[in-house]
Amino acid sequence: MKKYYAGLDLGGTFVKGGIVDEQGRIVIKDKIPTGRERPYGAIAADMAQLVKDLASRAGLQEGQVAGVGIGSPGLIDAEHGVIVYSNNIRWENVPLCGAVQERLGLPVCITNDANAAALGEHFCGAGKQFGSMVFITLGTGVGGGVILNGELFEGFRSAGGEIGHMVIERGGWDCTCGRKGCFEAYASATGLIRRTRESMVAHKESAMWKIAGSLENVDGKTAFDGMRAGDAAAKQVVDEYISYLAEGVINLVNIFRPEAIVLGGGVCAEGETLLAPLREKVSPWLFGGADYAPVAIVAASLGNDAGLCGAARLAMCRK
Amino acid sequence: MKKYYAGLDLGGTFVKGGIVDEQGRIVIKDKIPTGRERPYGAIAADMAQLVKDLASRAGLQEGQVAGVGIGSPGLIDAEHGVIVYSNNIRWENVPLCGAVQERLGLPVCITNDANAAALGEHFCGAGKQFGSMVFITLGTGVGGGVILNGELFEGFRSAGGEIGHMVIERGGWDCTCGRKGCFEAYASATGLIRRTRESMVAHKESAMWKIAGSLENVDGKTAFDGMRAGDAAAKQVVDEYISYLAEGVINLVNIFRPEAIVLGGGVCAEGETLLAPLREKVSPWLFGGADYAPVAIVAASLGNDAGLCGAARLAMCRK
Repeated sequence: MKKYYAGLDLGGTFVKGGIVDEQGRIVIKDKIPTGRERPYGAIAADMAQLVKDLASRAGLQEGQVAGVGIGSPGLIDAEHGVIVYSNNIRWENVPLCGAVQERLGLPVCITNDANAAALGEHFCGAGKQFGSMVFITLGTGVGGGVILNGELFEGFRSAGGEIGHMVIERGGWDCTCGRKGCFEAYASATGLIRRTRESMVAHKESAMWKIAGSLENVDGKTAFDGMRAGDAAAKQVVDEYISYLAEGVINLVNIFRPEAIVLGGGVCAEGETLLAPLREKVSPWLFGGADYAPVAIVAASLGNDAGLCGAARLAMCRK
Repeated sequence: MKKYYAGLDLGGTFVKGGIVDEQGRIVIKDKIPTGRERPYGAIAADMAQLVKDLASRAGLQEGQVAGVGIGSPGLIDAEHGVIVYSNNIRWENVPLCGAVQERLGLPVCITNDANAAALGEHFCGAGKQFGSMVFITLGTGVGGGVILNGELFEGFRSAGGEIGHMVIERGGWDCTCGRKGCFEAYASATGLIRRTRESMVAHKESAMWKIAGSLENVDGKTAFDGMRAGDAAAKQVVDEYISYLAEGVINLVNIFRPEAIVLGGGVCAEGETLLAPLREKVSPWLFGGADYAPVAIVAASLGNDAGLCGAARLAMCRK
């Protein structure tokens, strides 16, 4: 009897779920509203039901789903299956694993959402052929997931791998964590938007005004679109953004020397427009040389499925 | 028959060697001049002879030394036993392990000197009770060794763990690696000396002039001595130095979340004068809180023996 694993990707708006086989193929997936204002027990019940529904719709027999993994925002105590806190869902010390487990009668494990996405990309996405990789999501914040020797690295009490909260410019931009000058402050989409707006205010003639319409409408694409339209200020915004991104990436390469850096998150939709200059900025500065121990810099390939694939993978590895 | 391991700590001036038992006790140790201007074969022969002499002086029988480990400066290809390059000994692609091994008929393994010291401190020094630790040497440069789940982490082709080459102040002080603003530029004894001299030039009245005698005579102790003498400029130098050190330490905690940060190198001789304010600056900024996953910040305890103990430990683990 072929075995399958369920992956659940818990977000502030939706819970995405999927059933994944041992080769990393998603046999079925769906999503339900999180309803995050409800007590966690109700959400856990919905998550358990989602797994049951998906298994039944995929025609699986009792016992074919061998385990369940959850990717969740926030600080996760993986060992005890507890969400220590999550700003996103406003939870504190929620024993989610146990709550889902008792409703399903299946082993349930959990990690944070960036770790889950990293596991997914490593298992069946852009990181597949690499023994070690650092996954970096460039979204509202900068999340990270570190895979060393094929395994997820989480640190003491799963509080490590917070690569976004590495100061790269002491005394620089305020970060949500309270420090100043974190990698996240510059390399997130939020940081890119801030830089874009600052440039627009300084360059009233910039094409970015036409592209975005207003400062409020600026998004992570505005500067890239401006650059493509030949706007000099926009090009400078993109250059500076990529330079800061490179600074953090070089740091992470010198620290972890992974075989690959896998970039995910919204900004990555730019593909080679982002990656080609990033590689150029990173390559000369790798400790020991890029020839000695080359590091691939690639875009994530699973998109929104990375989290549920990785959550399923987590369950697979913990079986 | 009790087993022992030989550790060799290769430096630019001396090769230190020791025989270590499985409990981490050094049964005998000695040092010989490196003679680094000679061909590597001659140095390898001396290293092999040092192991033989130590074993014989310790009264060990043939076969009681089960393996040899080497800690060496430079970039090390641990898998192939090759020193890829070392500024210190001016070597490039030197297959040192093989050269020592063929003269001894014993398995020989190698890692870089900071890694060896980290292993030593973890095996029988200040890091003994911790499952994971980041070792940071504050010397001419900033070296590092990372122990995760009880094992040395070296990264792809052993080129990782270069924590000194993490930029913490973009565009800041020049680093020997070519980048600007690396942790090493600020947190090394060299960085402390630079900061001390700059302050002396700006404060002609400072007690540091009397303490050091001249700018040339400034060392890593000058500012600490000045602070103890009540000098305000010296106190500011120490404060700033520790603030930069803290910035890098917080980064490393957020990235690795080790159970301990172990500090070695010359500057550490200051003990609690350095450590107490460092803990105070680090503690509020640990991701997820210092209570949730506490990180001990302690001084290394093995001094100059860390390297040879760790080199012996490396041999023990690779047996």
